[in-house]
Amino acid sequence: MTIDWDRISHITKVDPAKPLPSDLDVLEGTDLVLVGGSDDVTEANTLAAIRSVKDAFPSMPVFQEPYSSAHVSKETIETADSVAVPAVYNGDRNHFVGKHVDLFTEVGRKPESLLGSGLPVVGDLIASKGVDAISELTTNVIGEGYVVQHLESTAATTSGVETTYTSEQVAGAALATEAFYGFPIFYVEYSGTYGGPEDVAAAARYLEETTLLYGGGIDSQSKTSEILAAGADAVVVGDCFHDDPETFRETIPE
Amino acid sequence: MTIDWDRISHITKVDPAKPLPSDLDVLEGTDLVLVGGSDDVTEANTLAAIRSVKDAFPSMPVFQEPYSSAHVSKETIETADSVAVPAVYNGDRNHFVGKHVDLFTEVGRKPESLLGSGLPVVGDLIASKGVDAISELTTNVIGEGYVVQHLESTAATTSGVETTYTSEQVAGAALATEAFYGFPIFYVEYSGTYGGPEDVAAAARYLEETTLLYGGGIDSQSKTSEILAAGADAVVVGDCFHDDPETFRETIPE
Repeated sequence: MTIDWDRISHITKVDPAKPLPSDLDVLEGTDLVLVGGSDDVTEANTLAAIRSVKDAFPSMPVFQEPYSSAHVSKETIETADSVAVPAVYNGDRNHFVGKHVDLFTEVGRKPESLLGSGLPVVGDLIASKGVDAISELTTNVIGEGYVVQHLESTAATTSGVETTYTSEQVAGAALATEAFYGFPIFYVEYSGTYGGPEDVAAAARYLEETTLLYGGGIDSQSKTSEILAAGADAVVVGDCFHDDPETFRETIPE
Repeated sequence: MTIDWDRISHITKVDPAKPLPSDLDVLEGTDLVLVGGSDDVTEANTLAAIRSVKDAFPSMPVFQEPYSSAHVSKETIETADSVAVPAVYNGDRNHFVGKHVDLFTEVGRKPESLLGSGLPVVGDLIASKGVDAISELTTNVIGEGYVVQHLESTAATTSGVETTYTSEQVAGAALATEAFYGFPIFYVEYSGTYGGPEDVAAAARYLEETTLLYGGGIDSQSKTSEILAAGADAVVVGDCFHDDPETFRETIPE
């Protein structure tokens, strides 16, 4: 599935460890679903959540956003439209580069196993098909340059974030994403609190090809509008999807 | 200048803090020059070295490989064909992400100043031209995914490398470069010692779009051949360029 980011302004973050609302129709106004979380998340409940959303809305783009390589498998990569792996600029080494090398080392270690154990192993031929299979698979794995701006959040704790960035540093990280790392997404994350439009405006200045997302404390249409007006491509709405469908509906732009 | 990597198999690393050989003709057989180093390197001697090579060989691609953002300026970016910034996978946080955000924060901080102080400041117009100028400038800055495999080297010490990678991890870092970070270059660096073909072969397996370079201990044509046969696009030859032109000539592939 090719994602037309111009048509995406509202994204729902689904925590696979929480029960889905009994009526998934609440997702009607959202443009993309991001499935991921930290506590009690597994590869199995991630896959189940992706499939539930796909069953209800077959044309909805669904991304997995894994917090650990243990949540990623050949099945999640193939079932989700993309696996968007956070790279946390102001996190610790493990959350920018360490985990990623581990993930790709794991994926690349035994290309043969990707082809299934039932296949006869014909020396280099199978290995070379395995390499092709891995190349194919990894095209579905993309990077999200993250800045986590709320220290009192699980996202900050689990990513080793000890200091937030100034708006100038947010702009620098955005420019590095656009010009150097080439991740398709840059994400300003205020996880659980509303951060206002300043960081978004600073980042938007340098982003042309990169999609700019904002998450944190969005609980009304006026906040959605303020963030979109500052230059974000989309807002990400999480908590109230599971807890408060009324508020969730109010976050959807007109 | 667009670089045709298919025509580049031998690269010379020039240390701008060391005197250039009196006869630069020794560079005739090399395909690209990389200017950079750590001790006593400045923005000024970097710029002088780039210009000396360009004066002698106007069509030679010359890259700056900076060790510090203090070595980078608008002039170096504009004079070199590319500024290739190392991102050291097995280094410390500062040498994968920290320095890069600092560099891009610095570049992005005052777009107005890039246009020169003589220009009248007309509100947003000048700022927007500044942003364009920065976008233009940063297209010349590219990433090099590095793995430093010799612990007893200045490169390892200055990058905070405390452990070398296994060949499987080298392959993982290569795959991460190709599929996730998108740096155009992956560099296996044995700085000062010859590492043999294993890591190069492991990395080559997963690299299609990424250029694969190897550096370290190349002092004969047979070593050059062994590394190229293992899948490297080019060898990088440093020390003997300054010290031992006879040996340097022997490293050039036929």
